[in-house]
Amino acid sequence: MSSFHRKANGSAGCLDRRTFLHSIPIAAAALYAAPASAAISVDDQPVPTPEQAHGEAIPNMMGSEQIAMLVYPGFTALDLVGPHFFLSGLMGAKVHLVTNQPTLAPVVSDAGLAVTPTARLQDMPARLDVIFVPGGFQGTLAAMTHAPTLEFLKSASVEARFVTSVCTGSFILAAAGLLKGRRATSHWAARESLAAFGAMPIDERVVSDGKFITGAGISAGLDAGLTIVAALRGRSYAEAQMLQAEYAPVPPFPGGRPETTAPAITSAMQGMLGGFNARARAIAG
Amino acid sequence: MSSFHRKANGSAGCLDRRTFLHSIPIAAAALYAAPASAAISVDDQPVPTPEQAHGEAIPNMMGSEQIAMLVYPGFTALDLVGPHFFLSGLMGAKVHLVTNQPTLAPVVSDAGLAVTPTARLQDMPARLDVIFVPGGFQGTLAAMTHAPTLEFLKSASVEARFVTSVCTGSFILAAAGLLKGRRATSHWAARESLAAFGAMPIDERVVSDGKFITGAGISAGLDAGLTIVAALRGRSYAEAQMLQAEYAPVPPFPGGRPETTAPAITSAMQGMLGGFNARARAIAG
Repeated sequence: MSSFHRKANGSAGCLDRRTFLHSIPIAAAALYAAPASAAISVDDQPVPTPEQAHGEAIPNMMGSEQIAMLVYPGFTALDLVGPHFFLSGLMGAKVHLVTNQPTLAPVVSDAGLAVTPTARLQDMPARLDVIFVPGGFQGTLAAMTHAPTLEFLKSASVEARFVTSVCTGSFILAAAGLLKGRRATSHWAARESLAAFGAMPIDERVVSDGKFITGAGISAGLDAGLTIVAALRGRSYAEAQMLQAEYAPVPPFPGGRPETTAPAITSAMQGMLGGFNARARAIAG
Repeated sequence: MSSFHRKANGSAGCLDRRTFLHSIPIAAAALYAAPASAAISVDDQPVPTPEQAHGEAIPNMMGSEQIAMLVYPGFTALDLVGPHFFLSGLMGAKVHLVTNQPTLAPVVSDAGLAVTPTARLQDMPARLDVIFVPGGFQGTLAAMTHAPTLEFLKSASVEARFVTSVCTGSFILAAAGLLKGRRATSHWAARESLAAFGAMPIDERVVSDGKFITGAGISAGLDAGLTIVAALRGRSYAEAQMLQAEYAPVPPFPGGRPETTAPAITSAMQGMLGGFNARARAIAG
């Protein structure tokens, strides 16, 4: 395995194999390196420098971002894995799956999917380029009052270039006091309660306000992830990843928003979510 | 915790907490149960029967599907987690994360995200309702020649109601001989090579042919997941989940398909993927 590929992968787990079709680092290599015939022997390719990458099909091909993606008990896996696909494809970046628990034991999502973290809060470098926080429900409410989590977010966000979330992850940022006076979004059913924390709820898929990038509910992580990548590396890099992910969605039927869903379903879903809102507002005090 | 919620979750990991905003089982409960004020005290609600669920806002609210989602070294996490969000939200269903490895050790994705499986191939019940196979690159090629994986798929697919995949996962089904004469899809850059296995490659986001449901590249797992849910429980159930996931995608810029991406990016990506195709075709023999 070349040092090129080692650099390109954020996590230790994939050092023992080459990824290809789904590895933007390798795909990216082809964008400036490469006769097609060389693509499967990337191990034999020299390590390109960032300077070599510039001026070719995509600028900012190489980077060295430190990216912390928070995992906490009860997080929603898709909130995490959508953005993780794109952020883990940033060539040269290091992606940390950071648990807010005391050990590196697997962290179980709200739907029972257990992910192995790669670091603890106290393992994080002093300066992070990106902080990402996924949403959830009970686990999110718990994280909103978990002092080590809030202290980490407060502290790390000072120097971070981007502080980001998907779904109710924005409520954890809000509980850390980071969204005061900021435009931000969240899951459609919870969004307005961000106001209790001094944020300005915005009904958009992805909302950027300074260094803060927040995404709407769950599946918005794909849109938010691409937005973060574009902010870090430019639009061409994000477009290459978008093509790799074949992200040209075709939902099988209309819906996905309150106003496009059958009223009986929408009203029932809205009714239930009072519980999250009431509890989040109680935390806001 | 109510027996209702225990029934509603497919995996052991979430038995110790209630999920809510992101838990379609709970959301579904509200659809036929529930004054909004009761939604946060679901623990106190009686366990509804499938009969009670019928005739309300959504039919087929309760089920008992056995669902096997394959994980193998080098799988692409988003291929798995998109459909997992929807399948794990099927009230009463049991979702198995099935490793093709000898132990229940975490299985590492192509991007270094390690997921803990809940079962091995030999632990699967004789009759599965759904088999799902994610894609990848090197790991996928390896799985395509891994005898226990192919034997499991061949055997389990005989009785299964639906045999499904996302991205190059369809190549594992094809290598098991399951797609001969079938319409099927895969990642855009690999799709045509399905023909080497006797399948009919179709350029659609999700392709259904009898019990076989295959999705296009990576992010198509969300569309495929909803399609599978609709096939199992009907469109209303899928629409409720779609609203819960806020699946109304707004990609930040055009792209995601070869014909909508800058030619320099598309041609480079196409060039690289000859490697997968050549190796897949070699396996087809």
